[in-house]
Amino acid sequence: MIKVGVMGATGYTGVEMVRVLLGHPKIEITFVTSEKNAGASFSAVFPAFQGIFDQTLISSEQASLHSSASVVFLCLPHHSSMKAAAEWRQKAVKVIDLSADFRLKSAQEYEEWYGKHEFPELLSQAVYGLPELYREKIKNADLVANPGCYPTSAALALAPLIQKKLVHLESIIVDSKSGVSGAGRSAEVANLFSEVNEGFKAYKVASHRHTPEIEQTLSDLAGEKVRITFTPHLVPMDRGIFTTVYATPTQKIKTSELTQAFQEFYQGEKFIRIESMGRYPNTREVRATNFCDLACVVDERAGRIIVLSVIDNLTKGAAGQALQNFNLMMGLEETMGLKLLPHVP
Amino acid sequence: MIKVGVMGATGYTGVEMVRVLLGHPKIEITFVTSEKNAGASFSAVFPAFQGIFDQTLISSEQASLHSSASVVFLCLPHHSSMKAAAEWRQKAVKVIDLSADFRLKSAQEYEEWYGKHEFPELLSQAVYGLPELYREKIKNADLVANPGCYPTSAALALAPLIQKKLVHLESIIVDSKSGVSGAGRSAEVANLFSEVNEGFKAYKVASHRHTPEIEQTLSDLAGEKVRITFTPHLVPMDRGIFTTVYATPTQKIKTSELTQAFQEFYQGEKFIRIESMGRYPNTREVRATNFCDLACVVDERAGRIIVLSVIDNLTKGAAGQALQNFNLMMGLEETMGLKLLPHVP
Amino acid sequence: MIKVGVMGATGYTGVEMVRVLLGHPKIEITFVTSEKNAGASFSAVFPAFQGIFDQTLISSEQASLHSSASVVFLCLPHHSSMKAAAEWRQKAVKVIDLSADFRLKSAQEYEEWYGKHEFPELLSQAVYGLPELYREKIKNADLVANPGCYPTSAALALAPLIQKKLVHLESIIVDSKSGVSGAGRSAEVANLFSEVNEGFKAYKVASHRHTPEIEQTLSDLAGEKVRITFTPHLVPMDRGIFTTVYATPTQKIKTSELTQAFQEFYQGEKFIRIESMGRYPNTREVRATNFCDLACVVDERAGRIIVLSVIDNLTKGAAGQALQNFNLMMGLEETMGLKLLPHVP
Amino acid sequence: MIKVGVMGATGYTGVEMVRVLLGHPKIEITFVTSEKNAGASFSAVFPAFQGIFDQTLISSEQASLHSSASVVFLCLPHHSSMKAAAEWRQKAVKVIDLSADFRLKSAQEYEEWYGKHEFPELLSQAVYGLPELYREKIKNADLVANPGCYPTSAALALAPLIQKKLVHLESIIVDSKSGVSGAGRSAEVANLFSEVNEGFKAYKVASHRHTPEIEQTLSDLAGEKVRITFTPHLVPMDRGIFTTVYATPTQKIKTSELTQAFQEFYQGEKFIRIESMGRYPNTREVRATNFCDLACVVDERAGRIIVLSVIDNLTKGAAGQALQNFNLMMGLEETMGLKLLPHVP
Repeated sequence: MIKVGVMGATGYTGVEMVRVLLGHPKIEITFVTSEKNAGASFSAVFPAFQGIFDQTLISSEQASLHSSASVVFLCLPHHSSMKAAAEWRQKAVKVIDLSADFRLKSAQEYEEWYGKHEFPELLSQAVYGLPELYREKIKNADLVANPGCYPTSAALALAPLIQKKLVHLESIIVDSKSGVSGAGRSAEVANLFSEVNEGFKAYKVASHRHTPEIEQTLSDLAGEKVRITFTPHLVPMDRGIFTTVYATPTQKIKTSELTQAFQEFYQGEKFIRIESMGRYPNTREVRATNFCDLACVVDERAGRIIVLSVIDNLTKGAAGQALQNFNLMMGLEETMGLKLLPHVP
Repeated sequence: MIKVGVMGATGYTGVEMVRVLLGHPKIEITFVTSEKNAGASFSAVFPAFQGIFDQTLISSEQASLHSSASVVFLCLPHHSSMKAAAEWRQKAVKVIDLSADFRLKSAQEYEEWYGKHEFPELLSQAVYGLPELYREKIKNADLVANPGCYPTSAALALAPLIQKKLVHLESIIVDSKSGVSGAGRSAEVANLFSEVNEGFKAYKVASHRHTPEIEQTLSDLAGEKVRITFTPHLVPMDRGIFTTVYATPTQKIKTSELTQAFQEFYQGEKFIRIESMGRYPNTREVRATNFCDLACVVDERAGRIIVLSVIDNLTKGAAGQALQNFNLMMGLEETMGLKLLPHVP
Repeated sequence: MIKVGVMGATGYTGVEMVRVLLGHPKIEITFVTSEKNAGASFSAVFPAFQGIFDQTLISSEQASLHSSASVVFLCLPHHSSMKAAAEWRQKAVKVIDLSADFRLKSAQEYEEWYGKHEFPELLSQAVYGLPELYREKIKNADLVANPGCYPTSAALALAPLIQKKLVHLESIIVDSKSGVSGAGRSAEVANLFSEVNEGFKAYKVASHRHTPEIEQTLSDLAGEKVRITFTPHLVPMDRGIFTTVYATPTQKIKTSELTQAFQEFYQGEKFIRIESMGRYPNTREVRATNFCDLACVVDERAGRIIVLSVIDNLTKGAAGQALQNFNLMMGLEETMGLKLLPHVP
Repeated sequence: MIKVGVMGATGYTGVEMVRVLLGHPKIEITFVTSEKNAGASFSAVFPAFQGIFDQTLISSEQASLHSSASVVFLCLPHHSSMKAAAEWRQKAVKVIDLSADFRLKSAQEYEEWYGKHEFPELLSQAVYGLPELYREKIKNADLVANPGCYPTSAALALAPLIQKKLVHLESIIVDSKSGVSGAGRSAEVANLFSEVNEGFKAYKVASHRHTPEIEQTLSDLAGEKVRITFTPHLVPMDRGIFTTVYATPTQKIKTSELTQAFQEFYQGEKFIRIESMGRYPNTREVRATNFCDLACVVDERAGRIIVLSVIDNLTKGAAGQALQNFNLMMGLEETMGLKLLPHVP
């Protein structure tokens, strides 16, 4: 059994991390941390886990004294995360960081969007953990920067278009819609049930921190700087991201051809499902699983390519992808512990 | 008191029509029709109205014998609606048609999207009932084609951009998100609670029937044919449409300037609210009211204009706008019966 | 116009109070207070009210300097409310208190459930504002204790049973289910969307503070001490209370007879609707209105009476009832400003 | 591998049956039936299963020709189910029937509530599949009548009270609240999203067909006829049943003692979790798992026992319990395939 720890286990990303780890046949969770709930059991905070996972939550300080974990998953806020990562790396423990702290390659760009980076020297060691694009690098990584939820949905929708030079780079628009769990588990009036329910809104229009992360991946694929327009919206539901991507085609193309191009690009990928022509995805259909479902449409009337992309923000958009990265880093079967069965409804 | 009738009173548009009519001080409802529920009282179908509006529903055939209504509101499916409109017009009764039957000027375009039009001669008499753009024509109309919900939200977001030539016409994308009441009140598995709840999906991507209606209004404003990309999505909530419009600016412009252009364009409009810079609308904030709230953002990094537009699909997107048109046609104060107070939450 | 003030206008009860006051033809709101948002406009906190009610929120201190209000509505937390009430009464301003501070007649009982009462001398002056039971007293009151939401739904369901001696007093069970707005508008993890949505729970079982309030009304009607079992539950929806009352009948009775007894008891009441036999109420059907809908069932197999009662917790359960009390105190038509039209859906 | 078939695989019970079967290590699904969707793949009906379970749906007629299944799960409507059961039993195939057809021991009682029973001779062979009460009988059964969802939640809450003679039998009230999936997957206006959302209602008050089923189990435990009052309600959420049970104690008892009595009664049960004193369950906490969570409260003021019981109506209330019965019938570990991990939120 491989021993792992989870820091920040009582946020929504943390509890999802615990869920997928518990389903993995080769993993033993040696510690789970929470500053606020240290001393309580995990199942006291999340009673759904009573009798399933009753381990006592410890503080991060106590965790740092643990020497037995081989891999640590960081489900901490940015800035806290980079400090923890540096500490664990010093002890030669592998780190999968689910925060934003190691996603941007440039310390300067990080500073623009998140504030000063205190461990810029670690940035070059970090590998961006999107397996469908960077599988080989991840296999050899000791520090993985697990992608953001929006960037995962957007990059998987756009990668085939860019790699195959099917769209004009300056024409890309990413219109995303997220469930409320993406806003986290801290007490804020704006996220109360009676504030969110029965409403739909946009937020951080053209100014969301995931913008540079999406652009970094696209630029890497394009070999040149790509700038996009990104608008996130909030949907009154718990889980799921739906991303609608728009771009102008570089050549005449049909929906069937585009669909085929996607099927080729993602051939053999276990967590990517390309919808057949005329079928569109629904966030419900990937809920609590590690799938990303994609559909392609060419709007021939208006001359535009549309790609629809859905993931569960907490699974493929966070903890599931982290476990996928773990499997790659450990040389295990990539799908181990991730054949998650969906429930309907 | 002005006597009016409502045909198709037991769909969601119909019941909303009744709600707003009951709040109008100069209107008396003389009949409400329903083929399926004829003989039952309106409040037997919608018990919320017990003691408020208990009138007996009659069949359309019975209604056609009524001679006392001066204006009839048609909340019927398309095709049924055109027949009813023709009949009422023959009796010189004014008609406000909430279906799609008289929205498109061209019988040929109607045929492409909806099937054959049986009363093409009436198309030229019909006035498109978007008061903010066609107020003067509506005042003299006998047959008003009440706009669709998506087209209302899109046209109001785009009109200032096009009239002021701020955007390239071929760059327009309309990404809309609608509450479930937009799907109507007929029994379909796809619209069951447990199918829709906790999910988000797109439908009729680049092929929705509201596309030509949006384009017709934009083309009219532009003085040339405009083609757009339109993607509708379904939000797990009862009411509301959120439309995110994207376009490429023809000149450098700032968010503040764009916001000011909108304020000027809609100066004096009672049902349009322009959000101040940095504030974005929410469908909840217009629920059950006749407002359209708009916000402007310029994405200077990517060179793009974004306009956010929210309405209640059943009020400003249907029955509220119909009553606004009624007021104009009757020479009444435009806001009469429409100063609807919002509830929070 | 009668000048009124609202203290605590930015909670859910406060904003609902403002909504119903704005619809009243003889009321002018002279001030609205909020400690946290003083200086901001009401519509900055609740953007749904932009252009409708943009008055600046003031602090309670500033409000106390106002001399023009004839009536003040207190939408404050308990304890804060009693102080404000005492102050306004000293200035001979009439007070309608929506908190729990003046509902219990006994200072000792108040202390058991809420803590020490600082103005016990005011308790005897306060009139319990349930118009259907205490209409005449309310007409002459200067200080009205507006009932709690659960107590309103329970008392209206039980009053006919007790007054007509139809049930054994020791057999009464009140099983209530409330929408989330009843939990208030303060930032708490437990009330976040992703904590409440898609779940159903009980809370404060047999220990909720509304228990003595319900018992006080029932005891008053019975002429002897009544003790009940009361269980509140939380429903994932914004508004509404559904109360299911159980009791053992003192004599053989049929559903039709019980329904008739209720119709007689509530004869002439404008805000009580008795469902016909076999129809059961739904919280949706009273949403944002001042109605209480009631249905009676006799379970002849098991020998038990069941009464179903629904109200909107913020309207008949708070602000609507407060306005009804206002109308009575001012000698106005009881329904003035309260003929609220429901929307479907 | 044990070969099994599922009849009626495209209702909510059917798809949940498939989900739990797919997670069982010793089961192979040999057929899934659907009259309406025969010929289509299971994943065409439920796209969440694309790439996971793409088996073609067949008609019941085709299925009856299959000879390889050892056990068949019937997720059919009542009446259809009894015919299928009789057929499979004739071929010596074991049957787990999730309909109501074999739950009631008395053909006469069945007729009163459901209509005529065509195979009364099979009733005596059927074993009521509530493992916590009838485990030994289930082990030897060839035909298991899987309990209804409400009866499961009620019987597990009441069994300790009755077996230990803690309550007066004539005092029992069962107030249940169910998610919408309990209403099934057929197209009905009453179950549309916009009819159910944001509302709470009761239905079939004191007349629901699950009443005799609950009474049968309680009478069996009590050794005498027990009659209860049962009220089902509908909660705007997908999954979950919350049952609040009330009864009058036969002796003075404290919450701690009652809790201990429950712990003793359910000692060693893997799917029953007794909440510690002061903690109440939530349907979310058992979602998509096979748990039944129970909490005990004694209302000492009013002299009443309250038990709170939650299950997932589709899992412990249907398919999960069916699989638990399967394990018992096959001599397998009772929890095999049922250690389902919950997701939060």
